[in-house]
Amino acid sequence: MVNQNKESKITLLGAGPGDPDLLTLKGVKALQAADVVLYDALTNEALLEHAPADAIKVYVGKRSGEHSYPQETINKLMIDYALNYGHVVRLKGGDPFVFGRGYEELDYAASYSIPVDVIPGISSSIGVPGLQQIPVTHRGLSESFWVITGTTTSGEVSNDIYQAATSNATVLVLMGLKKLSKIVEIFKAAGRQSLPAAVVQNGSSEDEKLVVGVVETIEGLVKEENIKAPALLIFGEVVSLHPSFKNLVKQYASIA
Amino acid sequence: MVNQNKESKITLLGAGPGDPDLLTLKGVKALQAADVVLYDALTNEALLEHAPADAIKVYVGKRSGEHSYPQETINKLMIDYALNYGHVVRLKGGDPFVFGRGYEELDYAASYSIPVDVIPGISSSIGVPGLQQIPVTHRGLSESFWVITGTTTSGEVSNDIYQAATSNATVLVLMGLKKLSKIVEIFKAAGRQSLPAAVVQNGSSEDEKLVVGVVETIEGLVKEENIKAPALLIFGEVVSLHPSFKNLVKQYASIA
Repeated sequence: MVNQNKESKITLLGAGPGDPDLLTLKGVKALQAADVVLYDALTNEALLEHAPADAIKVYVGKRSGEHSYPQETINKLMIDYALNYGHVVRLKGGDPFVFGRGYEELDYAASYSIPVDVIPGISSSIGVPGLQQIPVTHRGLSESFWVITGTTTSGEVSNDIYQAATSNATVLVLMGLKKLSKIVEIFKAAGRQSLPAAVVQNGSSEDEKLVVGVVETIEGLVKEENIKAPALLIFGEVVSLHPSFKNLVKQYASIA
Repeated sequence: MVNQNKESKITLLGAGPGDPDLLTLKGVKALQAADVVLYDALTNEALLEHAPADAIKVYVGKRSGEHSYPQETINKLMIDYALNYGHVVRLKGGDPFVFGRGYEELDYAASYSIPVDVIPGISSSIGVPGLQQIPVTHRGLSESFWVITGTTTSGEVSNDIYQAATSNATVLVLMGLKKLSKIVEIFKAAGRQSLPAAVVQNGSSEDEKLVVGVVETIEGLVKEENIKAPALLIFGEVVSLHPSFKNLVKQYASIA
């Protein structure tokens, strides 16, 4: 055993959407006290600089549709490192509990009686539209927002999207780019072809890209602009507040 | 004019749910560069220590049901300070665009051509359950979460709650404590009396309090434990993952 004095513990830490400055102070403190950091593909490597130089840093690359390590392996690595080295920070993109399988990791650690702390992170579902100055709620336009995974365990579109397409909520779909065709079809079947829609690639990062349109046009725009995952889909009247949407409306008005 | 050299600008900054360590690094930097800070009741005053000692700090106290200043006054103060002193940081509880009327402030500033930056914050809708180790999503239990205001402009319960009560989403209601009776009634009418439910008062703060039960029992628990606003309501199967819920189930099982 390498760990002779250190107490085993695990911190599930949300890294935020990408910009390393969107980490919380609590997150910085956890990294500074880390013996080991296990990090995902979605976390910015600049964050690792908060950890001590001699801390072990292990990439367990995991992003939509491309799991370098199966979840079981990550769980086991986490326990092994905690038992052998002490404090493991499990650094996850966004918030640990927003489609991050964070609770599975917490539960696994609990089965070994290793204490777990959770530090929330800025979820891209709220932060990415916000940075684009698209508010997820706004008086008169939206009294709620609904955050849904585009890719379920079964590989199908979540049933929740069917209901969301008929609701007045702002609908935010994570890991949904590959399912965009199907999702657009669902919104159209609900009669929402004119609903404002946007897609943001790599929100808060240097290679951030945005397209703004309506349900009817959004898939074409994504192809034209060659938008890649990870991307956030935004459906709702609040998208009409974005300057690009206002310009679109002016263009259409000048044609008509 | 006091402001002879400084450029007028406004930063809408999300302070997070209460714990001052849940502020982001980007938020710290904005406060350090502030000439003026306008802050809400829901923000922890310890955050003001990041701002320069000679920055002007103005409390514009605003919380659920108790608006010390009307929104119009806050908008005007923000512009006056920006024109006269330079960089105004508008510090808001949670995230600026989650029921914070942040977009109204952004829009007002834009009408004066004052540039606005937005810095997202941890929304209590995600962070507060997370800190209680209640994941808003979890494989097999929830593929989505729906965040709704309990108190709309009209003073009524949002219509979105009726639809949410019939959905499989984890439902998170902000500013809903006063409407709990009505909300419980809506869930019961949808046949969800056994759905796990929790209420968290002052999440992430020292006076945090939690009650855990089901739709049928939650109102009684809130009264017994004297839960006060600000509080977050959580409805969904994910609440069953909380240790208190597991204990409740054991108690019932031992009686039966």
